[in-house]
Amino acid sequence: MNVNTELFGAFAFHAGLMAVNTLTKSFLTARQRFRKGNFISREDGAHKPSLKIGVGIDDDVERVRRAHQNDIENIFPFLTLGLLYLFTNPEVSCAQLCFRIFSGARLLHSFVYLWEIPQPSRALAFFAGIGVNFYMGYKVLCHFAGSI
Amino acid sequence: MNVNTELFGAFAFHAGLMAVNTLTKSFLTARQRFRKGNFISREDGAHKPSLKIGVGIDDDVERVRRAHQNDIENIFPFLTLGLLYLFTNPEVSCAQLCFRIFSGARLLHSFVYLWEIPQPSRALAFFAGIGVNFYMGYKVLCHFAGSI
Amino acid sequence: MNVNTELFGAFAFHAGLMAVNTLTKSFLTARQRFRKGNFISREDGAHKPSLKIGVGIDDDVERVRRAHQNDIENIFPFLTLGLLYLFTNPEVSCAQLCFRIFSGARLLHSFVYLWEIPQPSRALAFFAGIGVNFYMGYKVLCHFAGSI
Repeated sequence: MNVNTELFGAFAFHAGLMAVNTLTKSFLTARQRFRKGNFISREDGAHKPSLKIGVGIDDDVERVRRAHQNDIENIFPFLTLGLLYLFTNPEVSCAQLCFRIFSGARLLHSFVYLWEIPQPSRALAFFAGIGVNFYMGYKVLCHFAGSI
Repeated sequence: MNVNTELFGAFAFHAGLMAVNTLTKSFLTARQRFRKGNFISREDGAHKPSLKIGVGIDDDVERVRRAHQNDIENIFPFLTLGLLYLFTNPEVSCAQLCFRIFSGARLLHSFVYLWEIPQPSRALAFFAGIGVNFYMGYKVLCHFAGSI
Repeated sequence: MNVNTELFGAFAFHAGLMAVNTLTKSFLTARQRFRKGNFISREDGAHKPSLKIGVGIDDDVERVRRAHQNDIENIFPFLTLGLLYLFTNPEVSCAQLCFRIFSGARLLHSFVYLWEIPQPSRALAFFAGIGVNFYMGYKVLCHFAGSI
């Protein structure tokens, strides 16, 4: 059960980057909510009585929330799959490539989603990320199939 | 701070399986969106100008999304609780049982949700899964209560 | 790649607590759904044919769901960032402080959200939690920047 130290460092860096990437979406959502005056909870409108709370859905707010949710759906599994993948004795260069592709694809996905770049940009970035996740998942399942 | 190697393998297998189970929901959602022509982002309808984008909520799409969200709410905590549970010196057979029940219950939950099997199937599968999570959480909190 | 045992225990305790905190939101949502008769899936209304399923959004249900989603967005990144942070050789007292602030802030956040305490209580609890996350993320990125 040995893990290559260099590889652990690479995972730690990319996992940290991806977690921070997800966290920043909270601020982007808040920014859109203030810009558009679109709030859901009653207590959030106390500073401006003229605001109507919980009325209507704003597309600019929802776009950031969809990008956030897509991060949750893809990055959180990566945080576990990447860690377990380290224990399958992968080639250092192959594992590094996986982490870099994932990081790059997900940063691109966020950019493409939020700036509304035409398709198929978002689909391609999504598939690159989930492809890495499935590859690492496959490796983990094969390696540990004996201890099911 | 020793972890039983066999047990780590069992956790790694079931954690990998559960992560992959969650990831596949993305594709099932996409399949329903294409089948029903139900898209939210403007740029997703560029291939078919007659499509109305962001209009209406489709129940077949939403069902998959609810199953996905339920996975997120239950499986992601498992990925951490299961790992920490390994450090509480559990009985190997007991821990293996936990992981197997969780995996089985969550696969069943997905099946029951997506095929719309009558209640209480979904409730039972849900309670089996969250029961394991709470059990492991309790064990972790008791074991590490000294280092709060 | 050594981790302080005492510090690992502190992380394990707080991570377990936060995971359990997130899981309990499922039950609070279910309680509100039964109290208000607000269900989404067709099969959930079989016990009471007079119920209208999937009709309307109830604010008391949605409030719990928003608190749950906020936990997902903040606590799940903590579960990974906190673990990686242990490998950056932090001061024991500083890391303990981080974990305690995070735990306290997130428990407060849940309380403030669900009991609808006036702002800025929720904003402050939110910022304390995400501040710890960003701090640990920054430490992780700096420490492992060499193995990118």
